[in-house]
Amino acid sequence: MGTGQSATARANANIAFIKYWGNRDDRLRLPANSSLSMNLDGLHTVTTVTWDAALSEDSLTLNGQVETGAKLERVRRHLDAIRHRLGLDAHASVVSTNNFPTGAGIASSASSFAALTVAAVAAAGAQLSERELTTLARLGSGSAARSVPSGFVVWHAADRHEDSYAESIAGPDHWDLVDVIAVVSYQHKEVGSTAGHTSAHTSELQATRVEHAPQRLAECKAALLERNFDAFAEIVERDSNLMHAVMMTSRPPLFYWHPVSLDIMTQVRRWRADGLPVCYTLDAGPNVHCICTAAAADEVIARLKAMSGVDEVRAARPGGPAVVLS
Amino acid sequence: MGTGQSATARANANIAFIKYWGNRDDRLRLPANSSLSMNLDGLHTVTTVTWDAALSEDSLTLNGQVETGAKLERVRRHLDAIRHRLGLDAHASVVSTNNFPTGAGIASSASSFAALTVAAVAAAGAQLSERELTTLARLGSGSAARSVPSGFVVWHAADRHEDSYAESIAGPDHWDLVDVIAVVSYQHKEVGSTAGHTSAHTSELQATRVEHAPQRLAECKAALLERNFDAFAEIVERDSNLMHAVMMTSRPPLFYWHPVSLDIMTQVRRWRADGLPVCYTLDAGPNVHCICTAAAADEVIARLKAMSGVDEVRAARPGGPAVVLS
Repeated sequence: MGTGQSATARANANIAFIKYWGNRDDRLRLPANSSLSMNLDGLHTVTTVTWDAALSEDSLTLNGQVETGAKLERVRRHLDAIRHRLGLDAHASVVSTNNFPTGAGIASSASSFAALTVAAVAAAGAQLSERELTTLARLGSGSAARSVPSGFVVWHAADRHEDSYAESIAGPDHWDLVDVIAVVSYQHKEVGSTAGHTSAHTSELQATRVEHAPQRLAECKAALLERNFDAFAEIVERDSNLMHAVMMTSRPPLFYWHPVSLDIMTQVRRWRADGLPVCYTLDAGPNVHCICTAAAADEVIARLKAMSGVDEVRAARPGGPAVVLS
Repeated sequence: MGTGQSATARANANIAFIKYWGNRDDRLRLPANSSLSMNLDGLHTVTTVTWDAALSEDSLTLNGQVETGAKLERVRRHLDAIRHRLGLDAHASVVSTNNFPTGAGIASSASSFAALTVAAVAAAGAQLSERELTTLARLGSGSAARSVPSGFVVWHAADRHEDSYAESIAGPDHWDLVDVIAVVSYQHKEVGSTAGHTSAHTSELQATRVEHAPQRLAECKAALLERNFDAFAEIVERDSNLMHAVMMTSRPPLFYWHPVSLDIMTQVRRWRADGLPVCYTLDAGPNVHCICTAAAADEVIARLKAMSGVDEVRAARPGGPAVVLS
C-alpha cells in the first residue's frame, strides 16, 4: 500500500428537471445549455482515493470488481486532469461503490465523478472552492458538476472551463419533493450518454431545443422557488419530451423509451389530470422518474408497483452535497 | 327520391412517407409542407352522392348509420364548397362505407373526402381536371388530396388554393411495396388530426420540421424512383419520428404512440438491421404501418402476428386513383 494519502467521499445521484444534452465542447464537456437538477438522497456513490507514489499505475475497483478497460481509462483521464490541476504526479488507487445499479437511467456517472473528484482533491490535501470542484467534476462527466453542490442545483453553460460551474439555488429542505423511480429494466443501455451527447447535433431539432432552454430553465427555477407544482410539472415533462425528441431524431436515432416507459408516462399524465401532484422525466435510459410531492409519494409508489413491467420502485428525497467522509 | 342525379365513387386510403402536419392556412387546409404518399389498394371508401332539388337538407349515412352531428356538419361544409364551385344549389344525400375501421390510424378522412369529392362532381355531371379535384378534396381533408391521383403521390404546399394540388409521381406498378399495418387498437383516437394540425405551431420544433421538409421529400422521392429501399427506409422513419417529436412537444402534448407501437418500432429497426427490408411510419394514431418489399411481406406479417398487443394485421399494395364506379 505504500505511504499513500487517502480520502473517502460520498456523492448523490441527481435527476435533471431541465436536461443536459449535447456539448458546445465535447473535450471539456462544456454543455450546449444550462441545466437544473435535484440531488437524490440515498442514491449515492462512495469512493476512496489513495494517492501513492509507490504505485506504477492507476487502478479502479468498482462495486468490488477490478476494472481494466474503458471504465479504468475514463477514470485515469479524469485523474490526469486532477493531477494537472494540483501538480501531482503520483498514481492513485480508486475504490468505488454505487448503492444502485449502473447504467439503467439513474445517472451513476454523475455521482461517481463527483465522489471521485471530491475524494481525489481531499486525499491530496488540497483546498478548492465548491465552484472549482464542480468544474473539475464536469470534466469527468458533465452532470457530475450538479452532484457536488447541495439540494437543487443549476449548472451554467459557458464557453470557458472556469465559467461552466454548478451552484445550489435551494437547499434540500426547500421543497419536500420525492423522486419515485420506476425501474423498468436493469439492462445496461445500448448507447451510453457520452456517445449520445456527441450525436445531439445530428438532430436538426437540437438547435431549437438549446435556443429555448434558458427560457425553460427560468420557468422551472421560478416554479421551484415558488413551490408551484402545476407549473413545475408542465415544464419538467416538456423539457424531457424535448430531449427525447432530439434523441429520436439523431442519426442514428436513439430511442431510450421502453414500451413500459411510455405506459407510465401516459398514466402519470392521467394521474395529474385527476389531481395527483406527479410528473415524469426520463434521462438517457428507460427508467421513469416520477417527481411528486411528499404527500403524494405513497400513492405514486403504490400505483407504480401495481403496473406490469415495473421491476422495482425506489424513492429519493432531495439530497445534500458531496461530502468527505474521512 | 325525387329526380336526383347520382354517382358512386371509390377512393383508397393512403399512407404518407413524408408527413403532412400543420397548416399555413387552417381554413383552406393549405399545408405547412409538401407531403408524399402511397395509395393503399383495397382499403377504401365507397361513396354515393345524389343531388336532389327535392331534398330540404343534406344527409349523411356512414357505414349504415345516419349521422346528424359533427360528421354531417363537416360533410355539409364540404358540399357547400362543391356547390359553390359548380354553381349548384340542390342538397345532397351522401351514403358512404369504409371497409376498414374509422379513426384508428388508417386515415379514413382521406379516402372519405376523396370519394365524396369525386362522386359529388360526377353526380353533378361536371368535368373537372384531376388537379382541380385534388384541390377540392383538400378542402374537406388535407390528405384527401393525395387519395385522388394514382399510386405514389406528391401533394404540393403552396400559398394559394389552386396551387396546392396533388399529382402522381409513379403508378402503383412502379415498386411492389406492401404496407403491412399492425392494428394496435380500435379505440378512436383521443385527438383527431384536424385539431392536431391546428396545434402543430405550438411546438417550437414545428418550424424546423417544416424548414427541412423539402429536402426530406426530395430524398424520399429519389429513393422511391430508384427503388432504393435502404435510403427510403431511413428517410421514412426519420420523417415519422420528426412529426411525432412535434406532436409530443405541442401544447398540450399529443402522444399517439401506444406501448405496443413503440415495441413494434424497436423490432422493425432490429429486423431491418438483420437484413429484412422493412421500415415503420405512424400517422396520428397508434397503428404501425410497416412498409416492406413484396418479397418480405409474408415474413413481416408472420412476425407482427406473433407479437402480443397486435390485434390484427392488414396488408395493402400500392393502389390506384379515385374512380367513378357508375
